[in-house]
Amino acid sequence: MRDVFIIGTGQTPVGEHWDLGLRELGASAIRAALDDAGVETVDALFVGNMLGGCVNGQENLGALLADAADLLPAEAWKVEAACASGGAVVRAAALSVAAGIHDVAVAVAVEKMTDAVSEQVTAGLATASDGDYEASHGLSFVALSALLMRRYMHETGASREDFAPFAVTAHRNAAANANAMFREPISAEDFARSPLVAAPIGVLDAAPISDGAAAVVICSREALQPHHRPVRISGVAAATDTIGLAGRADLLTLGAAQRSAEKAFAASGFAPKDMDFFEAHDAFTIITALSLEACGFAPRGEALKRAAHGCFSPGGCVPLSTFGGLKARGHPVGASGAYQIVEAAMQLRGEAGANQVPNARVALTQSVGGHGSIAVTHVLEA
Amino acid sequence: MRDVFIIGTGQTPVGEHWDLGLRELGASAIRAALDDAGVETVDALFVGNMLGGCVNGQENLGALLADAADLLPAEAWKVEAACASGGAVVRAAALSVAAGIHDVAVAVAVEKMTDAVSEQVTAGLATASDGDYEASHGLSFVALSALLMRRYMHETGASREDFAPFAVTAHRNAAANANAMFREPISAEDFARSPLVAAPIGVLDAAPISDGAAAVVICSREALQPHHRPVRISGVAAATDTIGLAGRADLLTLGAAQRSAEKAFAASGFAPKDMDFFEAHDAFTIITALSLEACGFAPRGEALKRAAHGCFSPGGCVPLSTFGGLKARGHPVGASGAYQIVEAAMQLRGEAGANQVPNARVALTQSVGGHGSIAVTHVLEA
Repeated sequence: MRDVFIIGTGQTPVGEHWDLGLRELGASAIRAALDDAGVETVDALFVGNMLGGCVNGQENLGALLADAADLLPAEAWKVEAACASGGAVVRAAALSVAAGIHDVAVAVAVEKMTDAVSEQVTAGLATASDGDYEASHGLSFVALSALLMRRYMHETGASREDFAPFAVTAHRNAAANANAMFREPISAEDFARSPLVAAPIGVLDAAPISDGAAAVVICSREALQPHHRPVRISGVAAATDTIGLAGRADLLTLGAAQRSAEKAFAASGFAPKDMDFFEAHDAFTIITALSLEACGFAPRGEALKRAAHGCFSPGGCVPLSTFGGLKARGHPVGASGAYQIVEAAMQLRGEAGANQVPNARVALTQSVGGHGSIAVTHVLEA
Repeated sequence: MRDVFIIGTGQTPVGEHWDLGLRELGASAIRAALDDAGVETVDALFVGNMLGGCVNGQENLGALLADAADLLPAEAWKVEAACASGGAVVRAAALSVAAGIHDVAVAVAVEKMTDAVSEQVTAGLATASDGDYEASHGLSFVALSALLMRRYMHETGASREDFAPFAVTAHRNAAANANAMFREPISAEDFARSPLVAAPIGVLDAAPISDGAAAVVICSREALQPHHRPVRISGVAAATDTIGLAGRADLLTLGAAQRSAEKAFAASGFAPKDMDFFEAHDAFTIITALSLEACGFAPRGEALKRAAHGCFSPGGCVPLSTFGGLKARGHPVGASGAYQIVEAAMQLRGEAGANQVPNARVALTQSVGGHGSIAVTHVLEA
């Protein structure tokens, strides 16, 4: 197994791109990443995406984007792992380089959600849950998350308002991110007053429906060039849990998130305390809390208390969602895991501008799919 | 890069499984492959599938099937490469073993097409083509294939009837395959009389809409056990071409098929003349012809002439579709590439019964997606 490095990153702004489709968004991020890496072409392209079939009527995104980004006849196929597709596709590209089969590969993750009416997007997101035993009975993706949040509040005694710090920090961090969808700060009062989507989840607990694409160029040590500022993938692991919530012994333990984090930490030789920041899958504030606990950044049931003390704010013990996270940078669902890795690489290269975490050297990113049924966790190192 | 071996195969019958969904079909093939390999569990699961999002309303098939096949918490994600998803997923699993990241992995490919009305399946299949420039203008998947067939007839002077040998051989080979959808032999006269679907393509040029799942267990040399009868993946490559037909310099050269075959042959050290049989992507007879020519089994425009001389029949120079192929075994679209590899492994292990190719030692399988926009080619060796 060879060492694998990120040598280029690219992204489109996250938002509502009415004039752009999967083709244009994906190709734009790929070309930006190739330009950043200073490479002309690659051996292979891996495309992360969740909703192409359900929402856009376009599969075969490997060929579509190899063609659009002028990478033919490179190997190219799509990776889907629900909301964790963006993490999984970087994993796939890294596998191909680690295997010694490719020297330089690009992973792009793209989602185009605003092509469809909201009912269609809701149905699309529900394809991440159990179609036979959850979605077909009317449980939407947000409703399932609401069940998790209710259980968390029941077991820990937390209130809805106690989840505010995650959203407030995310919006504050997004303010200086030119690629973010929501750059307006919000207050804890705004959070408390936000209308409910599926009680107890309010609008400001939830990441928005978005369009966007993010890409990384990956290579072996042998392919590194003097002009590169490589970020090493020091540890990566993926793991699964029951697709339906009903099958879990403990609703508040995201087993796949926990196991993938443990394995990624073990592979990297680092521990949670070594992380200079954490890009969490903050699709809902409850998922942020559970992901923090699964990764060892807070004991079970303690994430909100630590958040209240500023532990996850800029300058805190583990800065979180440093460019605004899924909540405020935006959540083009199958692309978000790649945005996390792009942003972490920018931090580790010292290119994060106003959002820079001082002296950032090691970071964790975690991409979570379904309601924790799949998770992909990366330890990245400057 | 480590050597990679197939040590177990599993499949469901191909047909209309009204009582089974993606979950049951996929888990059944996985468990059969694990039983065949004599292994209890695996490090990772890779799922090939095309239409889960578009037709079944179910993504996140990695978690779904890891759960259903009792493989939690193994790494698991989905690979999509349109009609070549079944070839691509075996590629993905092999990458993970070649990289040294996993020792034993399982690749399953599954498709469930009969859940939907035919318009929905037609729309689903069209997601393999260019949504913006082909499908949205009303060009169905079969219509695009018909354009290729017309061009082939125009350039070579072939008639519709000249394509008959591919279908006749496929149906004959399927007769002894208990997993095949169509086990009734057909004659050249039946072929000539078959009703047109999209002229010049008739019903008997086309593979059927089907449900099914096929799986292989893959491992490293170090993980081989004395009871295994391993089949080595001696060469494998994937390549892409323009997603739309309009972008191609030559409609009758399947560039991705050609390039992936050349690379797979080069990696294996074998040449077309060394192949004891060929599992082709015979979704339409025209694709069979173009795939044969792309892989070097016939010069450009000569595949039908060779077929007329029995070259691709049992006992011919390169026996084709030895268990009935996509045409007669059936074509659960994203699963077919894995069926090809399962069947090739059975031949190479001498387990093909009435369909056995005598002394089969080396074989080629080619899984083609879109209209040749993606191809995955494997050289397998006993």
